Amino acid sequence: MRIVVLAGGIGGARFLRGLKDALHNRADQAEPQHSITVIGNTGDDITLFGLRVCPDLDTVMYTLGGGINEEQGWGRADETFSVREELKAYGMQPQWFGLGDRDVATHIVRSQMLAAGYPLSAITEALCDRWQPGVRLLPMTDDQVETHVLVADGSGRRAIHFQEWWVRHRAQIPAESFVSVGADSATPAPGVLEAVEEADFVLLPPSNPVVSIGSILGIPGIRDAVAAKTVVGVSPIIGGAPVRGMADACLRAIGVETSARAVAEHYGPELLDGWLVDEADAGVVVEGVEVRALPLYMSDPERTAAIARAAVELAVELGERS
Amino acid sequence: MRIVVLAGGIGGARFLRGLKDALHNRADQAEPQHSITVIGNTGDDITLFGLRVCPDLDTVMYTLGGGINEEQGWGRADETFSVREELKAYGMQPQWFGLGDRDVATHIVRSQMLAAGYPLSAITEALCDRWQPGVRLLPMTDDQVETHVLVADGSGRRAIHFQEWWVRHRAQIPAESFVSVGADSATPAPGVLEAVEEADFVLLPPSNPVVSIGSILGIPGIRDAVAAKTVVGVSPIIGGAPVRGMADACLRAIGVETSARAVAEHYGPELLDGWLVDEADAGVVVEGVEVRALPLYMSDPERTAAIARAAVELAVELGERS
Repeated sequence: MRIVVLAGGIGGARFLRGLKDALHNRADQAEPQHSITVIGNTGDDITLFGLRVCPDLDTVMYTLGGGINEEQGWGRADETFSVREELKAYGMQPQWFGLGDRDVATHIVRSQMLAAGYPLSAITEALCDRWQPGVRLLPMTDDQVETHVLVADGSGRRAIHFQEWWVRHRAQIPAESFVSVGADSATPAPGVLEAVEEADFVLLPPSNPVVSIGSILGIPGIRDAVAAKTVVGVSPIIGGAPVRGMADACLRAIGVETSARAVAEHYGPELLDGWLVDEADAGVVVEGVEVRALPLYMSDPERTAAIARAAVELAVELGERS
Repeated sequence: MRIVVLAGGIGGARFLRGLKDALHNRADQAEPQHSITVIGNTGDDITLFGLRVCPDLDTVMYTLGGGINEEQGWGRADETFSVREELKAYGMQPQWFGLGDRDVATHIVRSQMLAAGYPLSAITEALCDRWQPGVRLLPMTDDQVETHVLVADGSGRRAIHFQEWWVRHRAQIPAESFVSVGADSATPAPGVLEAVEEADFVLLPPSNPVVSIGSILGIPGIRDAVAAKTVVGVSPIIGGAPVRGMADACLRAIGVETSARAVAEHYGPELLDGWLVDEADAGVVVEGVEVRALPLYMSDPERTAAIARAAVELAVELGERS
């Protein structure tokens, strides 16, 4: 099978690890090989201290490559923070984004390659040469697209970078809207549309539907290509609350209820064919979308693989039907 | 007194620490305050992994600011090396220049300020705001001037960056000559010529006479300004061998004998007025230069302060004579 997965950070990365496990453990192993192409969100990329940071791509790469800080879900294992301490001693801003030393090296490599003229897709491939994530990891675009957040608080109404809203303010300042700066004129990275077109189906992990999956679908051409395929999503909302992260604050900003049903309706039946919800949401009905309920907490590798397996099975089933 | 010191890395930094001690401990403390302006060598600066590294400026800043690795003489105390390990894991070249994590932060700050358009002199001042070295530290120039080494070995005749010759090859490939790339069109950094003109005298620490002091004097205008002053130097050669480092390899390349006398003659009596040599070299005569012998190993703070005090006393004495 050829599978395409649109992925944000932690949720997407863990789902992908489960998917790799599920594909290798399938009973019908007779089938030769399954390829996974990941289209990663780059909307929350940011330039810090002159270094280009791609949090979601790196979380996928580190998680699948065995370098992730497991407890935290992002950043490197066995990390040190000398650079951060020193930048603070120099009074450098911002101090709310804590770059670890091992992580900094990744950004140094990326920034140097960018300065040398390489596109992000080629750089991501080069970084993956080391990490061997076992998937083909593509950025959604080689163009610079950054999610900014329109907020209003005591300091007035202003747009701030998504990371400032998310990391510095913990999404606690109400967001009025999200702007994907640069998306209008961006084009999908080389290989993205081809991978979708050749895919047997597309999976949406329980990533943030607004600022992760939403950013990817916002690159002109990607939504249409994906909509033409069998698409199965995994709900990031269980019983009215995000599985992790602060997706509720994002959904609120775009006027979508924090529920498994509302997120599926937000994706819409023209995009979505199948939808996995947690047992807590069993009975949810989404018009035009096949809904299945099963335990959705990715609490351990086995559970996560079971979720991925259910997504694959539903996609195969829906694909055979159509 | 207003004192100007031309300085390279370790030798210059240690001498400067001794000079600060000596000035504060003088018996005639009645005199209000002594200012020290350091003109630092930037000829061995190098861009590594997109980061601008100024080894000599940093060695002076860290040494006088209390952040130096004392045993090593360069780099930061309590250093970690996560970034270096990771860059190696990515296969990044060069691997022969080992940047520590704390040190990397300094280069990140500098590189970001350079990218923002600040000149090196302003950046050095900003970095010193943190380190409070107790001297005014000026780069010799804000222009990019890099010492390259013309070498010939089995790989043919070629020019390599000074750091590659010094650090990677440990100065073991015979050098044919040194080229100060960019020096011809460089101008002294703001404040350099003014500091020299206003100085009571100029001191040359036991820094490398070729690639450290020599690079500084090679910036058009600096040699003439210095030569107009009373200048006292401290021999970097004791009994025919460099006190530390590989100055002999540099002297050989420019056809100067490795001896206290030959280095003084290389500076020449039109530049140099006084010359401190070690007791091992007592009796050395340099035409037109006042030579004094005393123990010159900077083995501890007291000894180093005594050397600096001797240099100051000789400069004051020669100044009064002229």
